Amino acid sequence: MSIIPSLPLDVTGSRFRAIYRLQGNEKTARARAEDICIEETIEYPAELVPEGGIREHVFGKIETFETFGEAGYRAVISFADEITGFELPQLNNVLFGNISMKPGIRLLELDLSSSLLASFKGPRFGISGLRQLLNVNNRPLLATATKPLGLSAIQLAEMAYKLALGGMDIIKDDHGLGNQSFAPFYERISRTVEAVAKANARTGQKTLYLANVTGPFESMLERIYFAKEAGVDGLMLIPGHTGLDFMRRVADDDSINLPVMSHPAFTGSFVLSPEMGVSHLVLHGQLLRLAGADLSVFPNHIGRFASYSRQECIDIARGCNMPMGGIAPIFTAPGGGISPEVFGDMLDVYGRNVAYLMSSNLHRESTDLTGTVLRYRELLEKL
Amino acid sequence: MSIIPSLPLDVTGSRFRAIYRLQGNEKTARARAEDICIEETIEYPAELVPEGGIREHVFGKIETFETFGEAGYRAVISFADEITGFELPQLNNVLFGNISMKPGIRLLELDLSSSLLASFKGPRFGISGLRQLLNVNNRPLLATATKPLGLSAIQLAEMAYKLALGGMDIIKDDHGLGNQSFAPFYERISRTVEAVAKANARTGQKTLYLANVTGPFESMLERIYFAKEAGVDGLMLIPGHTGLDFMRRVADDDSINLPVMSHPAFTGSFVLSPEMGVSHLVLHGQLLRLAGADLSVFPNHIGRFASYSRQECIDIARGCNMPMGGIAPIFTAPGGGISPEVFGDMLDVYGRNVAYLMSSNLHRESTDLTGTVLRYRELLEKL
Repeated sequence: MSIIPSLPLDVTGSRFRAIYRLQGNEKTARARAEDICIEETIEYPAELVPEGGIREHVFGKIETFETFGEAGYRAVISFADEITGFELPQLNNVLFGNISMKPGIRLLELDLSSSLLASFKGPRFGISGLRQLLNVNNRPLLATATKPLGLSAIQLAEMAYKLALGGMDIIKDDHGLGNQSFAPFYERISRTVEAVAKANARTGQKTLYLANVTGPFESMLERIYFAKEAGVDGLMLIPGHTGLDFMRRVADDDSINLPVMSHPAFTGSFVLSPEMGVSHLVLHGQLLRLAGADLSVFPNHIGRFASYSRQECIDIARGCNMPMGGIAPIFTAPGGGISPEVFGDMLDVYGRNVAYLMSSNLHRESTDLTGTVLRYRELLEKL
Repeated sequence: MSIIPSLPLDVTGSRFRAIYRLQGNEKTARARAEDICIEETIEYPAELVPEGGIREHVFGKIETFETFGEAGYRAVISFADEITGFELPQLNNVLFGNISMKPGIRLLELDLSSSLLASFKGPRFGISGLRQLLNVNNRPLLATATKPLGLSAIQLAEMAYKLALGGMDIIKDDHGLGNQSFAPFYERISRTVEAVAKANARTGQKTLYLANVTGPFESMLERIYFAKEAGVDGLMLIPGHTGLDFMRRVADDDSINLPVMSHPAFTGSFVLSPEMGVSHLVLHGQLLRLAGADLSVFPNHIGRFASYSRQECIDIARGCNMPMGGIAPIFTAPGGGISPEVFGDMLDVYGRNVAYLMSSNLHRESTDLTGTVLRYRELLEKL
């Protein structure tokens, strides 16, 4: 007996699919798949739900279930579009909400319906838009960050000037540069915009300056609009701190109208354990595109992180480029201790729509930052 | 040689401490601790930084390093308050930003300086404030959620009425209730407020109704103010989707002035692997208190999740109650398939400042929801 009535429901439209890897033997893995169908939807005793609308339409459905190499099983589960309310936070609740607290389940890939995809604008610029801004047709991009934390706004701007003078394509603030007393946000942004503009005027090229915007939520839009007014060419946001949907909100905003680079700080725990969490492809690719990022920063498989495998980096590139309805493909921006020795391997891994994010080894090379950037640019142009 | 000047810096104030567990033998574990000092601060080649301000003040410092049972090593690392800018997102960058992408590192506990703690208001109500609102002095609270997804706003409100009539202390919306066509946000909130008020008028008791607010960022404050106007007694927020700092911003807002319950959806990956991520104590306790939550929802060690151990739940209770300067202690709100059989054990684990979050087994017991709540309340009053 149940207090849940059996009523028709307005959820008979299309369904989307999510692909999960499930640990354990067949019985355990199947139980996990069945659990996802319930825990991510009604989160209620299934036996109390009578035949009818909720059981038919709201429950998740196992579409396929099959062995998956030595890593357990792979299940494709479908959900009604309507239960997401066509809103990103609730979509993420359905994809990986409560089950994020259960072991042995990894979200591998999204296969969203065209109606769900159509409810997201995706990246405003994407690969082609960013290439237009830069006037760079086909080669990989060179990107860097101003650092270290502790420099003054004047020193950071001087560094940006030298880097831009060498022909750097993209300069961003280090993600740790917030609003510290030694380099206050407003001064840092203004001075760096000015420095990069001065260098661009000298070189006749276009270095884009992307401002890292972190801060208390009360100040986020104010800081973003300040940066826009000051003349930045784009923004860096950290969805680990703001939530993915804030990035989408910024990317969607016509009054902001700037490219967005996504930084992965605070989110590594989603991907590091292969038995659970969310795949690299989803975290650093598909979800970011839904949330409007134009560039996805993450650690390259060779470098000082060495925690992502080559295959996982290939998967990220796929997540950044695979067809997703009208959602544009985006640049991968691998970094974390890369050097010219790995340029070739990275091209194999990521293809040409990649921004090589370099700073530590660039600074190790020489105190002549401009000269080093010039040399790296030449190497890139020969790739 | 370095381009980094050796200058005095305005970061000579107090420092805060973070405690990490590091996997590996002594050499590996110490290298991880040293890596944290650099990666979470300058993120730059240490050898290029000359003697002086940045090296002395901005670098993290290993304060203690010792063996930690069979689980590797335990390091206490201190950081200058000033590098956080006294802002929560940048504090989280320092605590667990880039190193979230490196294996073998787990953030165990925060030991913040009094000046850093003083820059956060913390929970607006906390345990004592919430007890005042409820007029309940000493016993554990009974809490529940309206569900399943798929019910109409009218049906959800009817369910809330029956639950409130039995003397439920807190009723929240299920975290999956967003703004779906079958139960639109505004209608759901209005009808549930009305239903709970009607029940309160009949019982003479005070059931608090906490509205789950999820949605596109453009609508979040509008939805929150609507809920406030409609007469909700509190809010449930999901920092996994909004970021922790949005919760802090809502809790801090005098024009909102409502208790906040935090739901853990989408964040389980931080805690599930004991070798990495963030401890249960930090994720479900300390960070939530910095972010202003008054109640912390998470899965009880006995129940349908069974992914958190009893000790991990004890740790969460400690994180919700341990001294943190002026930051108030908060209620634990364990749920996920609990039943009256575990009331006693839960009292041992959590103490009396706990909200028992029950729905599945409450509904399994009988279709007479009011009667079941009455009986559970009696059980609680005898504890």
